[in-house]
Amino acid sequence: MIPVALYGATGYTGLELAGLLAAHPQVEPRYLVSSSQAGRSLRQVHPAAPDLPLVSSEAVDLGQVAAVFLCLPHAESARTAAAALAAGARVIDLSADFRLRDAADYQHWYQVVHPHPELLAEAVYGLTEHRREAVAAARLVANPGCYPTSILLPLLPLVGAGALRGTVVADSKSGVSGAGRVPKQGSLFAELAENFYPYGIGQSHRHYAELRQELLAASEAGPELVFCPHLLPVVRGILSTLHLELAEGWTMERVRERLEERYAAEPFVRVLPPGEAASLAHVSRSNRCVIGIHPAGPPRRLIISSALDNLLKGASGQALQNFNVAFGLPEVMGLPA
Amino acid sequence: MIPVALYGATGYTGLELAGLLAAHPQVEPRYLVSSSQAGRSLRQVHPAAPDLPLVSSEAVDLGQVAAVFLCLPHAESARTAAAALAAGARVIDLSADFRLRDAADYQHWYQVVHPHPELLAEAVYGLTEHRREAVAAARLVANPGCYPTSILLPLLPLVGAGALRGTVVADSKSGVSGAGRVPKQGSLFAELAENFYPYGIGQSHRHYAELRQELLAASEAGPELVFCPHLLPVVRGILSTLHLELAEGWTMERVRERLEERYAAEPFVRVLPPGEAASLAHVSRSNRCVIGIHPAGPPRRLIISSALDNLLKGASGQALQNFNVAFGLPEVMGLPA
Amino acid sequence: MIPVALYGATGYTGLELAGLLAAHPQVEPRYLVSSSQAGRSLRQVHPAAPDLPLVSSEAVDLGQVAAVFLCLPHAESARTAAAALAAGARVIDLSADFRLRDAADYQHWYQVVHPHPELLAEAVYGLTEHRREAVAAARLVANPGCYPTSILLPLLPLVGAGALRGTVVADSKSGVSGAGRVPKQGSLFAELAENFYPYGIGQSHRHYAELRQELLAASEAGPELVFCPHLLPVVRGILSTLHLELAEGWTMERVRERLEERYAAEPFVRVLPPGEAASLAHVSRSNRCVIGIHPAGPPRRLIISSALDNLLKGASGQALQNFNVAFGLPEVMGLPA
Amino acid sequence: MIPVALYGATGYTGLELAGLLAAHPQVEPRYLVSSSQAGRSLRQVHPAAPDLPLVSSEAVDLGQVAAVFLCLPHAESARTAAAALAAGARVIDLSADFRLRDAADYQHWYQVVHPHPELLAEAVYGLTEHRREAVAAARLVANPGCYPTSILLPLLPLVGAGALRGTVVADSKSGVSGAGRVPKQGSLFAELAENFYPYGIGQSHRHYAELRQELLAASEAGPELVFCPHLLPVVRGILSTLHLELAEGWTMERVRERLEERYAAEPFVRVLPPGEAASLAHVSRSNRCVIGIHPAGPPRRLIISSALDNLLKGASGQALQNFNVAFGLPEVMGLPA
Repeated sequence: MIPVALYGATGYTGLELAGLLAAHPQVEPRYLVSSSQAGRSLRQVHPAAPDLPLVSSEAVDLGQVAAVFLCLPHAESARTAAAALAAGARVIDLSADFRLRDAADYQHWYQVVHPHPELLAEAVYGLTEHRREAVAAARLVANPGCYPTSILLPLLPLVGAGALRGTVVADSKSGVSGAGRVPKQGSLFAELAENFYPYGIGQSHRHYAELRQELLAASEAGPELVFCPHLLPVVRGILSTLHLELAEGWTMERVRERLEERYAAEPFVRVLPPGEAASLAHVSRSNRCVIGIHPAGPPRRLIISSALDNLLKGASGQALQNFNVAFGLPEVMGLPA
Repeated sequence: MIPVALYGATGYTGLELAGLLAAHPQVEPRYLVSSSQAGRSLRQVHPAAPDLPLVSSEAVDLGQVAAVFLCLPHAESARTAAAALAAGARVIDLSADFRLRDAADYQHWYQVVHPHPELLAEAVYGLTEHRREAVAAARLVANPGCYPTSILLPLLPLVGAGALRGTVVADSKSGVSGAGRVPKQGSLFAELAENFYPYGIGQSHRHYAELRQELLAASEAGPELVFCPHLLPVVRGILSTLHLELAEGWTMERVRERLEERYAAEPFVRVLPPGEAASLAHVSRSNRCVIGIHPAGPPRRLIISSALDNLLKGASGQALQNFNVAFGLPEVMGLPA
Repeated sequence: MIPVALYGATGYTGLELAGLLAAHPQVEPRYLVSSSQAGRSLRQVHPAAPDLPLVSSEAVDLGQVAAVFLCLPHAESARTAAAALAAGARVIDLSADFRLRDAADYQHWYQVVHPHPELLAEAVYGLTEHRREAVAAARLVANPGCYPTSILLPLLPLVGAGALRGTVVADSKSGVSGAGRVPKQGSLFAELAENFYPYGIGQSHRHYAELRQELLAASEAGPELVFCPHLLPVVRGILSTLHLELAEGWTMERVRERLEERYAAEPFVRVLPPGEAASLAHVSRSNRCVIGIHPAGPPRRLIISSALDNLLKGASGQALQNFNVAFGLPEVMGLPA
Repeated sequence: MIPVALYGATGYTGLELAGLLAAHPQVEPRYLVSSSQAGRSLRQVHPAAPDLPLVSSEAVDLGQVAAVFLCLPHAESARTAAAALAAGARVIDLSADFRLRDAADYQHWYQVVHPHPELLAEAVYGLTEHRREAVAAARLVANPGCYPTSILLPLLPLVGAGALRGTVVADSKSGVSGAGRVPKQGSLFAELAENFYPYGIGQSHRHYAELRQELLAASEAGPELVFCPHLLPVVRGILSTLHLELAEGWTMERVRERLEERYAAEPFVRVLPPGEAASLAHVSRSNRCVIGIHPAGPPRRLIISSALDNLLKGASGQALQNFNVAFGLPEVMGLPA
């Protein structure tokens, strides 16, 4: 059994991850850390959670754990990561602190000086299917954002192959759990039921930075990107609708071949058959991402629909997938497929 | 009091229209027609509906009504329209039968020979804010589709002014009432709650034909159009997110000026202030369309968010608005603003 | 036009009442008061609200208004009521401050010394259909709670007539808007969607005190009462299921006659026909209460289902109904039926 | 691996059971039978279902399976059960065909002559925690109804001990999946969202017969029972609120002791600590039933809240639990706790 610590256990990603860790056959969740709820049981915090004690960060002996999962606010996460690494633990960070490789970029988007810029160089962006070997060797994994995971999984193989030209439009829709468990008026049931709207339009959502960085890494110029997230009246799930233009020599069939080939052996990515669109029902409570490929109407234009569970493949599931890779366990262990 | 008949009173648009007609100070809803529920009260069909009798079409004396509203399936609607016109009534058709001006086009999209192609030439496409004078004079009004209303209101003034170039992407999301009240597995609560997905992608949704026709009417070439509707787990409302590219000489500010000027005097169209996005909460249970204008990120790209209530401005509300125009009544009479 | 002030305009009952007041043909909403949002427009606080300015309480000249509506926290409400009465305005208080006639009782349930016990004697409990004349003459109306309105309307005529014996069980279910617009974890969409549970069971919900008081006023002994509220994953609406035992000489038919007779002339109470149960769909966005009467199975036992919109007949609608009565206006004016 | 057949695989209980069977470490789901969808994959019928072929009943060789699960309409289920038993398979019937022990009773409630009354005597009512030994030995298990499971688990130990007197009121609320996957207007999203209502009140719901039978089996006289189900706007889950009166000598504390003791060793029943009420969040997607015990207010009165997932402990989960018992496997195998 591998002893681990989870910081930030009482938010939605933390609760999800705590449940996965408690059921994982090779993990011993030694510490579930909560600054606000220490002393209570996790089950007192959520009725479906495992009955495990919450402790304060002072109670953690980092020397006793092999891995640390961080579901903390940004900046706070980086500080805990540094301490965990110093104690010899491997770190899987679900915050945004190590996703952007450039400290100035981070400061621009998060409005705070990066507490540990010296760690940025070694952090591995943990989009598992595209960084498996680096994750296996990493001390520090930056778990990707939920929107970027849904967009990059279908896009990276196409951008890398030069299949696209013009502007990529990512029109994304997310369930409410992505907004967190801290009470906000905008997250109230009475505000969201029977409602729907875009937010963080254009380059104002922080995930834009992460998307742009990874697209540029996949091809020198990278496509121009429009990213428009919306808030859905559902608890879980993200669906991204990608509006694309094909480069010379590319057809929808060739795109399909490229994606099917790329993901044929992947347990958590499924390219849907022709005519089938991605839906939240495909992926809810699983660690899967499903990808649908569709003719858009005008010649040379394509639509891709991509769906995942924002708390699983978009956060805690992918974090555990990275953990499995990092510790040489079967990649699907403890994960709902 | 103006006597009217409503055919197809027991579907969602029919129920909505019946409620509006019953409360309208200048309308006498003489006949509420239902082929399946004749003999019952409308209230027995829906607990919030007015307590008015439903009759069969045989019981209708078309000579007694000044106007006929049709919420019928396509083809059946055209046949009733022809009879009503012959009897001297004005017709407001909420079906798709008179939206496409070309009978061959209609046959292609609806897979049936048009029952009355001779009436197509005189039908007026009733997007009220853009055809007010024609509606006032029309015997036969083709009430626009819900998706097209949400897309054309923001788009027509821009296309007409040559503000756009490249491809227009209309990523639209609709509440479930648009799928009708006839039981279908796909419309069940247990299929839709916590779910979301695109459907009718590309050129497979019939509203594409209507959109393309009206965009071409607004400018010789018309922009290339991608239309991707999605089904939202809400009862009412449509939100369309339009991804646009500006033509030379156009800026977001100029777009804003154009739309604000165009709709300044319109009671049912509101251009939102900078920074505010359209939401279903803006428009639910009102006859309004609200339009938000947003920078998309990349230079020369723009996002417009547009929302309306699919049962009101997207169907029955606009039908009554057209009726008010046609009969010289104040346009806002009997309509929730 | 009757000038009025509304305090606490930005909560759910305040927003609802502001909308009703703005549309009422005889009301001029002179002051919409908000301690936290003064200086903004109400529309900036909610996109469907009227575009009226919010002011601080310092900006109010109470001498200029004929009536004051209070949607304030308890105790704060009583203090504002006293000031408004002193300035000569009539007061309709939507808080709980004047519902309980006994100051010690109030202190027990609300854990605060009543700020103005001297006003309790003159306050009229404004269940309109049962206190119409007193409301017409009152300076100070205590608008009933949402649960009590749904329970007392069907129960009072039966208790008064001695139709019941044994224990009355009121198993009530409320939409989420009743919990208010102040952010709380328990009111988040992600906590409530797909969830349902009882709360405030037994004598721990404050509405128990109000119910008990009014039942005792209707009959010397009053029935023993069990009150069990639940939280429904809907925004608006309350449905109370009353489990009753009939006294000697009473039958379901006699109960039906009693209720039908009692409410025959009431515009906002409807006794449903045999076999029809109350539902939220009957009453959503109307000021109505609907009442269904059902055989329970065992002889001498009866079930009554009762539904209303908690923001209308359960709060702001009944407040305006009381205002109409108090000012000699048609009782239905400005109220959705 | 134990080969089994599942009939009626494409309804909600069938889909749930198919998923459980496919993941069960000791089960081989040899036949998934669907009369309407034979030839397709189960995944084509629901995007989250396992990718297993659906076959017609003609394709089934009953001699090849050790157990048969029936998710069929009543009467059809009994006929298939008889055939399966004749072929030597054990039968777990999720329909109502073998729940009532009396054929005349069955005919009264289901309006059809029982096709195989000769099998009634040997059928075991499979409320696992109360019939474990009988289930282990049974050829034919009648899986209990969803409402009865939620009501009988807390009630049977109390009724058996003589803890109650007077009338038991079971005010139950169920999610929509209980109404099945066959399209009906009443099950549409647009009818149920933001709605709530009682149905099948009194003795008109078929589960009343089952409840009454089992309560009478637990004590000679049995308590008088009022059963009032409601339809909740959620997909999964049942919450029953039981309004009870204590017999002489019983207190809430003694009730708690009785239930805690009775269920202390049960993996799927949890008595909640004092002050905690049952909620759907406790049980969603688990095979658990949770039970809360509450003071009702008046002396000698008690409220019990009881929740379970109607598709798991209320149907397919309990069916698999019974299968595990019948085949000598660990009772929790393959079941989400």
